[in-house]
Amino acid sequence: MTPSFEEMWAELLPVGRSAASGGYRRYAWNAADAECRAWFEQQARDRGLAYELDRNGNQWAWLGDPAAGGAVVTGSHLDSVPDGGAFDGPLGVVSSFAALDELRARGARFGRPLAIVNFGDEEGARFGVACIGSRLTAGVLSREAAYDLRDADGVRLPDAMERAGQDPTAIGADHERLARIGAFVELHVEQGRHLAEHQPVGVASAIWPHGRWRFDFHGEANHAGTTRIEDRRDPMLTYATTVLAARKKARLAGALATFGKVAVEPNGTNAIASLVRGWLDSRAADEATLAALVEEIERVAAERGERDGVRVELTRESYTPVVDFDGPLRDRLARVIGGKEGPGGAPVLPTGAGHDAGILASAVPAAMLFVRNPSGVSHSPAEHAETADCLAGVAALADVLEDLACQ
Amino acid sequence: MTPSFEEMWAELLPVGRSAASGGYRRYAWNAADAECRAWFEQQARDRGLAYELDRNGNQWAWLGDPAAGGAVVTGSHLDSVPDGGAFDGPLGVVSSFAALDELRARGARFGRPLAIVNFGDEEGARFGVACIGSRLTAGVLSREAAYDLRDADGVRLPDAMERAGQDPTAIGADHERLARIGAFVELHVEQGRHLAEHQPVGVASAIWPHGRWRFDFHGEANHAGTTRIEDRRDPMLTYATTVLAARKKARLAGALATFGKVAVEPNGTNAIASLVRGWLDSRAADEATLAALVEEIERVAAERGERDGVRVELTRESYTPVVDFDGPLRDRLARVIGGKEGPGGAPVLPTGAGHDAGILASAVPAAMLFVRNPSGVSHSPAEHAETADCLAGVAALADVLEDLACQ
Repeated sequence: MTPSFEEMWAELLPVGRSAASGGYRRYAWNAADAECRAWFEQQARDRGLAYELDRNGNQWAWLGDPAAGGAVVTGSHLDSVPDGGAFDGPLGVVSSFAALDELRARGARFGRPLAIVNFGDEEGARFGVACIGSRLTAGVLSREAAYDLRDADGVRLPDAMERAGQDPTAIGADHERLARIGAFVELHVEQGRHLAEHQPVGVASAIWPHGRWRFDFHGEANHAGTTRIEDRRDPMLTYATTVLAARKKARLAGALATFGKVAVEPNGTNAIASLVRGWLDSRAADEATLAALVEEIERVAAERGERDGVRVELTRESYTPVVDFDGPLRDRLARVIGGKEGPGGAPVLPTGAGHDAGILASAVPAAMLFVRNPSGVSHSPAEHAETADCLAGVAALADVLEDLACQ
Repeated sequence: MTPSFEEMWAELLPVGRSAASGGYRRYAWNAADAECRAWFEQQARDRGLAYELDRNGNQWAWLGDPAAGGAVVTGSHLDSVPDGGAFDGPLGVVSSFAALDELRARGARFGRPLAIVNFGDEEGARFGVACIGSRLTAGVLSREAAYDLRDADGVRLPDAMERAGQDPTAIGADHERLARIGAFVELHVEQGRHLAEHQPVGVASAIWPHGRWRFDFHGEANHAGTTRIEDRRDPMLTYATTVLAARKKARLAGALATFGKVAVEPNGTNAIASLVRGWLDSRAADEATLAALVEEIERVAAERGERDGVRVELTRESYTPVVDFDGPLRDRLARVIGGKEGPGGAPVLPTGAGHDAGILASAVPAAMLFVRNPSGVSHSPAEHAETADCLAGVAALADVLEDLACQ
């Protein structure tokens, strides 16, 4: 007897959860991550699946012969953002195993190889780059660039891998592995409230283009208690103006712009800051809108910087173009799920979040299923999905896999 | 031969200076602080002064019998803010030794005991409370409160003292020591530009009332890429509005209000913050103006918080009432210095910064001399005073000490 969805869920629930925050701290190659990975391997073995650890640290569980080609692959990731929720990632992996169990219970006859995958380091919490496992595999993150990554303690990515028992010398593009895949389907908890008033399961249309820009506001450190206002070059003022402009201009553009991370030097109570560093996360439905938005925010920052005697420096730290998921695959999923849910069909919706499925979409037909999240809260301990909706997700994924992989 | 002002200055210059920032990292009871303290003791001994370490960690160098009473005391501190400048503190201590050398060279005959003091932990860089050495001595910081202080690594103040070889069991009010003091004069680099267009040396009139308020902006962590604008409770927006309001309202009130320190949770690039903590430093010429200013800033924060779905919590972390320096002593100093500088007399100016002299003013007649700072920059590696002005400061201090202590 393999464990049920609820049993698997209960097994993973305590792993890497902070007692203080109630959030998860499963970061690439840390102890909690290792425990999640051991759990994955055990699930594969308990089901008689062939377990593989690829050279980029992604875990695979195979039913059927990988070399046969045209495999249907499903899965997600098990790592978390700092103090993240229980669903982002694990829901896709647990649902994959549960969907396979469901297909076997139905007596499904597989016509293609099927695999379940756990991609390594999806959230980028430790090394600052998201989807490292899938990016390396797809060749969109080079081995050299990966070797240069360091965590907040200065530990290099290859050293972290090595300490966790993963050989880092072999990392890099793995086209042979990708060539085995006929279709990739990732199930994920929704990270907004689009599904909240609809069905429990939807299909992804696209991932909004998105990026991360670092604004460095250079002022002059000085004594907060003695420096006359007219003698100040206070970068906190320029930063504050930029934060408010980002929100306003994003709203007008129907887009998103968020400052969620700040670093201040010297960060003393009685010192005017010499440097405020603010990171802008911005996303929009299309690339032109996104580019225009960031340009507008930059203009406001520069204008206010002029007034404040603050030099503004802008660095684009990452950028991901729009991902339009494979049209025929998307429509097929919507039909399969929608057929069960009445004439309206399944909701088809875009997302602002990056995913391994978005990385793989450049190389193989890829698609995503979203499971309803009533509050829309994500990347937080308060992230939630109802069990009934999770089970509807498992059933939908089973239907999709049956349609794609069975005779 | 005792070392000259320039020689003493050169000895201290490299101690605790960061090669990276060029700023000083002399924090209470750290290695750089110990080196400064050893230097002080050596200066005392080289001049045949009686060296004393008091029970609160302040260092004293006595000429004459302390028990005689009515002592004239001068000095300042040797610790720094994070990445502070070379002058804030050390200028007063080095000038004190140089002024004593000058008086001896003049053949002055002392009619009262004279002491030079180095107060411990003036900047509060490590334990978050300024003027710990003088506050303990004056009894305005209790032994119990001091025992509860911790540094950023969680080290308790008494443990830090003990590790540095200072017995912490005896700390607390030291009225007997204060009773020996007839007058205290602290020379300090100016931390603004009031003297820039005047003489090299001025006299303090008062210390503005000042305080530190912590604003906690409580929002909701969420995914920056997927959460709809209308579903957000983003405390960064409330913080930004408060920063801008503080500046504007301070300008209108002729006061100062600065946010120089921020802490964000979870502080992730793709996460809307759950908590932004911002520290307000505010100062004004009188207490009513200061109270009204902080109240106005709080009102703006609360109003914007309402709009943002953000709860605002305000905590006053410290508050120092106005200090009016002893009138007769202040006038005497201004006459002594002004007499040398022409009929205009010495400039008399208030300051927004706290000082050990401000703490001692509650117990003994206290006064301050300021040395010109052409840029006004303070609490920064760029803090500067011209050597000629520093030597004018030494001469002024010598004149003042001669007037107060000699026959």
